[in-house]
Amino acid sequence: MPDVRIPASPVLTDTEAAALDAHWRAANYLAVGQIYLMANPLLTEPLRPEHIKPRLLGHWGTSPGLNLVHTHLNRAIRDRDLDALCVWGPGHGGPAVLANSWLEGTYSETYPDVTRDADGMARLFKQFSFPGGVPSHVAPEVPGSIHEGGELGYSLTHAYGAALDNPRLLVACVIGDGEAETGPLAASWHSNKFLDPVRDGAVLPILHLNGYKIGNPTVLSRLPEDELDDLLRGYGHEPLHVTGDEPLAVHQAMAAALDTALDRIDTFQRQAREGRSPERPRWPVLVLRTPKGWTGPAVVDGLPVENTWRSHQVPLTQVRDNPEHLRQLEQWLRSYRPEELFDPTGRPTAQVLSCLPEGEHRLGATPHANGGLLLRDLPIPPLEEHAVPVDKRGNALHEPTRVLGGLLAGIMRDTARRRDFRVVGPDETASNRLDALYEVTAKAWQGEYLDTDENLARDGRVMEVLSEHLCQGWLEGYLLTGRHGLFSSYEAFAHIVDSMVNQHIKWLRTARRLPWRRPIASLNYLLTSHVWRQDHNGFSHQDPGFVDHVLNKSPEVVRVYLPPDANTLLATADHALRSRDLVNVIVAGKQPSFDWLTLDEARAHCARGAGVWQWAGTEEAVDGDDGPDVVLACAGDVPTLEVLAAAELLRHHLPELAVRVVNVVDMARLMPHGEHPHGMTDFEYDALFTPDKPVVFAYHGYPWLIHRLIYRRAGHAQTHVRGYKEEGTTTTPFDMVVRNDLDRYRLVMDVIDRVPGLGVRAVALRQAMADVRTRHHAWIREHGTDLPEVADWTWTG
Amino acid sequence: MPDVRIPASPVLTDTEAAALDAHWRAANYLAVGQIYLMANPLLTEPLRPEHIKPRLLGHWGTSPGLNLVHTHLNRAIRDRDLDALCVWGPGHGGPAVLANSWLEGTYSETYPDVTRDADGMARLFKQFSFPGGVPSHVAPEVPGSIHEGGELGYSLTHAYGAALDNPRLLVACVIGDGEAETGPLAASWHSNKFLDPVRDGAVLPILHLNGYKIGNPTVLSRLPEDELDDLLRGYGHEPLHVTGDEPLAVHQAMAAALDTALDRIDTFQRQAREGRSPERPRWPVLVLRTPKGWTGPAVVDGLPVENTWRSHQVPLTQVRDNPEHLRQLEQWLRSYRPEELFDPTGRPTAQVLSCLPEGEHRLGATPHANGGLLLRDLPIPPLEEHAVPVDKRGNALHEPTRVLGGLLAGIMRDTARRRDFRVVGPDETASNRLDALYEVTAKAWQGEYLDTDENLARDGRVMEVLSEHLCQGWLEGYLLTGRHGLFSSYEAFAHIVDSMVNQHIKWLRTARRLPWRRPIASLNYLLTSHVWRQDHNGFSHQDPGFVDHVLNKSPEVVRVYLPPDANTLLATADHALRSRDLVNVIVAGKQPSFDWLTLDEARAHCARGAGVWQWAGTEEAVDGDDGPDVVLACAGDVPTLEVLAAAELLRHHLPELAVRVVNVVDMARLMPHGEHPHGMTDFEYDALFTPDKPVVFAYHGYPWLIHRLIYRRAGHAQTHVRGYKEEGTTTTPFDMVVRNDLDRYRLVMDVIDRVPGLGVRAVALRQAMADVRTRHHAWIREHGTDLPEVADWTWTG
Repeated sequence: MPDVRIPASPVLTDTEAAALDAHWRAANYLAVGQIYLMANPLLTEPLRPEHIKPRLLGHWGTSPGLNLVHTHLNRAIRDRDLDALCVWGPGHGGPAVLANSWLEGTYSETYPDVTRDADGMARLFKQFSFPGGVPSHVAPEVPGSIHEGGELGYSLTHAYGAALDNPRLLVACVIGDGEAETGPLAASWHSNKFLDPVRDGAVLPILHLNGYKIGNPTVLSRLPEDELDDLLRGYGHEPLHVTGDEPLAVHQAMAAALDTALDRIDTFQRQAREGRSPERPRWPVLVLRTPKGWTGPAVVDGLPVENTWRSHQVPLTQVRDNPEHLRQLEQWLRSYRPEELFDPTGRPTAQVLSCLPEGEHRLGATPHANGGLLLRDLPIPPLEEHAVPVDKRGNALHEPTRVLGGLLAGIMRDTARRRDFRVVGPDETASNRLDALYEVTAKAWQGEYLDTDENLARDGRVMEVLSEHLCQGWLEGYLLTGRHGLFSSYEAFAHIVDSMVNQHIKWLRTARRLPWRRPIASLNYLLTSHVWRQDHNGFSHQDPGFVDHVLNKSPEVVRVYLPPDANTLLATADHALRSRDLVNVIVAGKQPSFDWLTLDEARAHCARGAGVWQWAGTEEAVDGDDGPDVVLACAGDVPTLEVLAAAELLRHHLPELAVRVVNVVDMARLMPHGEHPHGMTDFEYDALFTPDKPVVFAYHGYPWLIHRLIYRRAGHAQTHVRGYKEEGTTTTPFDMVVRNDLDRYRLVMDVIDRVPGLGVRAVALRQAMADVRTRHHAWIREHGTDLPEVADWTWTG
Repeated sequence: MPDVRIPASPVLTDTEAAALDAHWRAANYLAVGQIYLMANPLLTEPLRPEHIKPRLLGHWGTSPGLNLVHTHLNRAIRDRDLDALCVWGPGHGGPAVLANSWLEGTYSETYPDVTRDADGMARLFKQFSFPGGVPSHVAPEVPGSIHEGGELGYSLTHAYGAALDNPRLLVACVIGDGEAETGPLAASWHSNKFLDPVRDGAVLPILHLNGYKIGNPTVLSRLPEDELDDLLRGYGHEPLHVTGDEPLAVHQAMAAALDTALDRIDTFQRQAREGRSPERPRWPVLVLRTPKGWTGPAVVDGLPVENTWRSHQVPLTQVRDNPEHLRQLEQWLRSYRPEELFDPTGRPTAQVLSCLPEGEHRLGATPHANGGLLLRDLPIPPLEEHAVPVDKRGNALHEPTRVLGGLLAGIMRDTARRRDFRVVGPDETASNRLDALYEVTAKAWQGEYLDTDENLARDGRVMEVLSEHLCQGWLEGYLLTGRHGLFSSYEAFAHIVDSMVNQHIKWLRTARRLPWRRPIASLNYLLTSHVWRQDHNGFSHQDPGFVDHVLNKSPEVVRVYLPPDANTLLATADHALRSRDLVNVIVAGKQPSFDWLTLDEARAHCARGAGVWQWAGTEEAVDGDDGPDVVLACAGDVPTLEVLAAAELLRHHLPELAVRVVNVVDMARLMPHGEHPHGMTDFEYDALFTPDKPVVFAYHGYPWLIHRLIYRRAGHAQTHVRGYKEEGTTTTPFDMVVRNDLDRYRLVMDVIDRVPGLGVRAVALRQAMADVRTRHHAWIREHGTDLPEVADWTWTG
């Protein structure tokens, strides 16, 4: 380690420095205690094997650094009366964040059985990473956290999401040098090009270079310092370095650096808010270089541990069986001088507590980290203002997402003062036809402006960046701190955030079980430019599997909607935007498509989630009582179009066949009642699909998803599903459905193949259908367009 | 646009500059022609609406920049006799890369019907983005490409993968400023910390700042230039700028910059290879700033188009219907002076062709872009050298991935001179127990070295970086250029690359249908630290859904294996490493687990993919002929353990019950024979699972995956699947299976619940099983460990 760069004159008095050091030692002691001890928490007797947990789990390496940051943030918050939140990127250092929460009292306030005394300390220790206890990572259970300490990469984008529209909030963000190697984190630095110093809060990144990952040095820690500084300046930041391994010197340097950083942030914000600075500030970044596993065992079994990757998890692993390890652990714990830090009842001493802020200023108590406390209902305009009129079904065309754009613009307008609604997306808001938003707001942009620019503004509340990771992370941070939003994306590219949505769903699933965590607004996806409409892009842009991905996760948190037209999209979005603690995935087209339902019908249909479209079938005409001969089911806009066209063909050519058309909007309705809160009972399901009649189901995505949802239903064996089966290229929309056997003609053939006893007219019709498909192939190769009878088709009922 | 920085003295003679400009104009002409024309390719007559395609699709905006780069790479390759490959990050600019391929003749050599004359030009134009034609993006169909032009973010990591172990290869990589905003790209810059100037080739990034994405300015294009330079220097590069919109000046600047860059690369490599430079070089990066849609229509319908986002796709959209658009298109096309570029028969003139390299030096003809041409079989040591002895089943414990590590080390040893095998992973190779590799190689590392470092070397062939995106991209680039490799990852985090593997699978699926593309080595995943073993990490690290994700994709490309022990893992890996053109996902544990099969048995079992483990069941003992009363099926190491323990309980307590144990290694065996090449026929399936007996299936992942694979099988309705259902926390392995109802006791209860007529002893056994589960819950809360009878269990047969 190079020497600490001691500031010109110490910023801390000896008393202050001693108090900060005491707090830091206390936190370190508590972190080690959590990893190792199940008894004797205050070391009131010599350490014995039976005091040690049988399974040693947890991550020590990052903990002393996190404890240092927390200690110094406490001081700064207290001195400056800050509203602050901290995102702990190395959230696997759960012992550190838990230790600090216990020290500041928020842990005991949240979990009254874990008192701030010896008994509570014993519980704090034992519960850690213990079956039935608390996870070893920072998780929803940890007061003050909005960030799961699992998969790395998302701390900085979460921090920015939290800071947006929170002008008084400071969001500190500790970024480990391991995490800094991930793509999402590397991209997140540029979030500062989207942060308005006037209307948003500040983000203070603290890059913690402790040098090692699980088994390797880190890239950034081994850069020459000038190269690292170039990098951080290139990211738009001015670096402030704190380097060292001598605690008191590091305390002075850290306090000085933090003061400098906060002063600069204050200056930048004041200048911007007084209109004196049109430039994007060069925000500070702290670079904290301290040893991995600092203050832990230097050498174990002859190998260096402190300041190497060997301190990543549990530095001493054989404590129960190896007396030398046990001795080293006791020495390590006693090196913090616990008797100076805790009184005989286990309460932290006044010195330890002297640097702590109070009330909601404590990092574990900020309401921003329990966003539901701050959440207000969204003002959603009456849908009537945006619905499309449907005088005649299947004749007028609208772009569903454009209609939705009007509604979103209304919400954006009505939140102009509250500023608690944002729309994020990777450069596609206009492409996705949501550009009505630009009538009331703009795209956030803090970069250079040119005369030709349109719809950019420093205070815009549409966020566009060509990174789905940033969009997702910003929105998660925004929602978790009590606001609302929508993520619009091309359907195929939603997979980019598969892993992020996993973690958010897991967060919500756990948070819902914690009574003190208040419900937050749902994470709403609008997936468009979907698999069936990739004329410009082709095969590489075709993937409807995001739905499959989320439907693997906890049912209580996940909803998937496939509204078939503009008005159903409105009704669905309205529902999603009002919901709480969910992930709602809405798949809808942006291309002109037919209107099927009036707003009232759409509302009723969406409320049911799935229902018979009587007007589209022939059940009544053929026989009112016997039920259908066949069910044509559909989910998704393109499958609905093809099913309706198929239903029309059947009505014309086989009028004696009783066809029922069922449309499904809410995919979870198909699931068993016991497995999803929206699942239909078998009685409901059979009433809709019949228990025994053939069902030809045209589905938007991979067909086997339907099978996995309905395999327990009585009618499953009779259900034949058509969907996307990875066939595609750059071609017309109709050619796409033909290539995947989802087209109207194929569906008619499917019906004929499945309904017994149809007779000779059906045989002829089947052949005619096959002939049209053959004709299609020849026509499209020649003309590059669809058959006129397809291109000009409208519903004639 | 600021002025071009003209070099001190022009590097190109007037003749050279004119020739490059002619080639560039020709490529631009051909790019526009592909987007618009279906007839009159040489403009031999005035342009009429019927010459225009009915659907105008494609991306113009990036094309002139790509054409410029290709033109200048041609010159440099020819002048310097380079082996070069180019990765086209803005691969949506398909028209540009296709145009260049046609000009250099590789397109006609690959597709003889598209001749390099007027007829061929007409075909080139019409086929583009036309049904039955070619995709609008750079795709496998494009000669010289290894990079799909679909989802953005992966160009630079692909480029590095291609350069590894190819010391004579120059890999140019065009990075669009849109793509540069993505996380994976942002992280990819640091790949230079892993590139050995001695044994690897060079990567020359060309950052193309044309200023706009689909609808927005780009972040990097709006940075102050000093900030951008800081960023690129921070990435370890020395920037060389080429800026302008006046073609001849840009040609001079581009030629000068490219010469400078290539000279520097040459110097760095020479110094390193002569042992004169232990430092990581500061590799050059070209920053090319030219207008988006350069040379296209400046203004359309009164709005600026060139040099704005409006030129992203099709600048003139109404050409068939709007005479002014038609006039502008003709003017635009004629602005390239096609009569100077093509002779009357449509062949490019000598001037246009004068800058082209020859033979395999042409970018479209490099064998590195058709890696199968260069691929050699991997030397895989005899498995006998690494297999574990199994004298008694289920008694000895091995860490399966550690056993695999020995095999991988053998391969690594035997490829030491060939250098065509790499293992990539995010900082987890040792954690995943593959550290035998370090006996024969090391981790690639070009950063600073410290005394405490272990297993790092400049020429190491294990690649570790805390970015799954980089691991995946490096490996894809490596495989696509004809080498072999394996990606080891924690199971849950494989989802990080969901979207990347989609694109790779789509690439393979398409490439397999192109006879000229030779098979490449498969992309092999080892997923470990799996869902059932997350003691250190807990809920956030639990997700077995990567398998579900890949099984949605084209069956001919995808294989999923769940070897239940060390020897089956060896046999599976051996098979995967020999395979071609596949994505193999192998899920296997790293924790000590029981050995079940000898190597010979493992080979036979893996060859079958699924089979009866007769020694584990009681079928023979009870009755040799009648078949089983119940089938206990399992897939995955932990489910196999629980099934065997359940089978043992049944054997002891209900010896009269005929139990069959079936283990599935190859998940595709479950799929219908017609849907996957490995799928069992119904006859085979029924012989294994019975058509009518209860099946209790313990599966590693989400249980509904099994249902979606087997829903057409006769026995499906009788099949009850247990698996992971999103229940978990930091706890013991056995508690995990209990929480998810996959434990041995629950499986016994499931059997009792499903087999009719078992009688009173079964009722008692069921109660006893429930009692053990209750006892487990109490015990673990108290002790933090598993019940002794579980912890000490071994198979007694």
